[in-house]
Amino acid sequence: MNLKLTIAYDGSCFSGWQSQSHKKTVQDIIESAFADIAGHRIIVHGASRTDAGVHALAQVAHVTLGEVSPKMSSPERWQSALNASLPPQVRILRAQRVSKTFHARFCAQSKIYRYLLWHDHTLPPLLYQRAWHIHGPLNFSLMKEMASIISGIHDFRGFTARSGAAQKNTIRDLYSVKVAQRGKEISLIFHGNGFLYHMVRMLAGAIVHVAREKTDPKDFLLRLHGAQAPIAPHTAPAAGLYLVRIFYKKINGLGVEM
Amino acid sequence: MNLKLTIAYDGSCFSGWQSQSHKKTVQDIIESAFADIAGHRIIVHGASRTDAGVHALAQVAHVTLGEVSPKMSSPERWQSALNASLPPQVRILRAQRVSKTFHARFCAQSKIYRYLLWHDHTLPPLLYQRAWHIHGPLNFSLMKEMASIISGIHDFRGFTARSGAAQKNTIRDLYSVKVAQRGKEISLIFHGNGFLYHMVRMLAGAIVHVAREKTDPKDFLLRLHGAQAPIAPHTAPAAGLYLVRIFYKKINGLGVEM
Repeated sequence: MNLKLTIAYDGSCFSGWQSQSHKKTVQDIIESAFADIAGHRIIVHGASRTDAGVHALAQVAHVTLGEVSPKMSSPERWQSALNASLPPQVRILRAQRVSKTFHARFCAQSKIYRYLLWHDHTLPPLLYQRAWHIHGPLNFSLMKEMASIISGIHDFRGFTARSGAAQKNTIRDLYSVKVAQRGKEISLIFHGNGFLYHMVRMLAGAIVHVAREKTDPKDFLLRLHGAQAPIAPHTAPAAGLYLVRIFYKKINGLGVEM
Repeated sequence: MNLKLTIAYDGSCFSGWQSQSHKKTVQDIIESAFADIAGHRIIVHGASRTDAGVHALAQVAHVTLGEVSPKMSSPERWQSALNASLPPQVRILRAQRVSKTFHARFCAQSKIYRYLLWHDHTLPPLLYQRAWHIHGPLNFSLMKEMASIISGIHDFRGFTARSGAAQKNTIRDLYSVKVAQRGKEISLIFHGNGFLYHMVRMLAGAIVHVAREKTDPKDFLLRLHGAQAPIAPHTAPAAGLYLVRIFYKKINGLGVEM
């Protein structure tokens, strides 16, 4: 049985998604919950390798289960059993049976990330580790302009922490980049067909730096157009980033590949 | 100089507001920040003695400062200095100079508390320690009916954890009790001239118990009308409670007593 899992977590409690020796990662914790239930190791394949501190409202992963006991034959049973074993900072929101060909990472068609800023003198305690605290002037219309400029198909090699060699294809399509303001809360919402390592944090960092009028929009454009930009990139803190949703193609109206 | 402080905190990090020996309380932490700055002890008088785990969006406190150095003569300076010394889980949102007669607790005219419920199978990790997780059927119209019944002037002795002897006057006026639903999030918003110890948590607990159809509304009414109710009271968990706002009479349009 192949299971698709929709998973939420508070990133401030973990060293990121991906398994690492001697670190507490979300993947490790879910694999350990599976091992508790199944009695053997089961590999959890996540769609996005979120960094330490990055939150997920709906990460997606899949697992391939071998023979399962009759009482563990339903996805709902796995969901309950996993949640009973997991800490409250990680929750399986949904478990669905999917076809053998479903792969959380390779079948993902697009993703939405939200970057949250708090623009005020003081960061409210309940937003600590959940937003990037920005104070001082912020040019909101410049922010919207930058968001509009990066929408579309670009070579984002200037906005990834890895060298071009590590990621051969650095062209991505950002379907939309929205800037939403509600009081002191500003959200940058990125929807794209894929994201490079640190791409959202580097885009958010650059947009904010331009909006604070500390970077000339021209330097931003130089970086976006692949030239060696004259100033160092700015990576926004992990704590403001949320993986919101991952889209897969719908088959038979089920919303999942069967 | 008398200072009025508006304070927010993440209650999950503290043993409540009020100073206790060998416990980490919000009052202790703020007094320790004052001592760091002033070089001597300054007592912080809070308006509400929130329990361990209860959050505050805008607690109010006052302090009486004696002679202060010229560089510490402005409230803004105290705000910055305190925030620099406090952990990020406690923030001074505002500091204002007030008259000598201002007392955070005795001058408070009314308060708003919000009780947050999450009504779904699974509690999202980002709401852990911030909402009461309720699953299973919930009769929303019964919930609204109970909220409407408790509005107004009542003797709330059945909804306090202390005996009648400890609090002589147990009559309070609830100006409004609102029930607001937004998706899986349900808020109970209480605005009243005063609240007894554990009153909001006991009212929220009773309302939810009736809405889950585990308590007969008649028993709720018996308790509200002062009779010895036949069943034990239900105290909602601290983590769902937020102190939202405290109102003081306005003088000279300043919103503060000068």
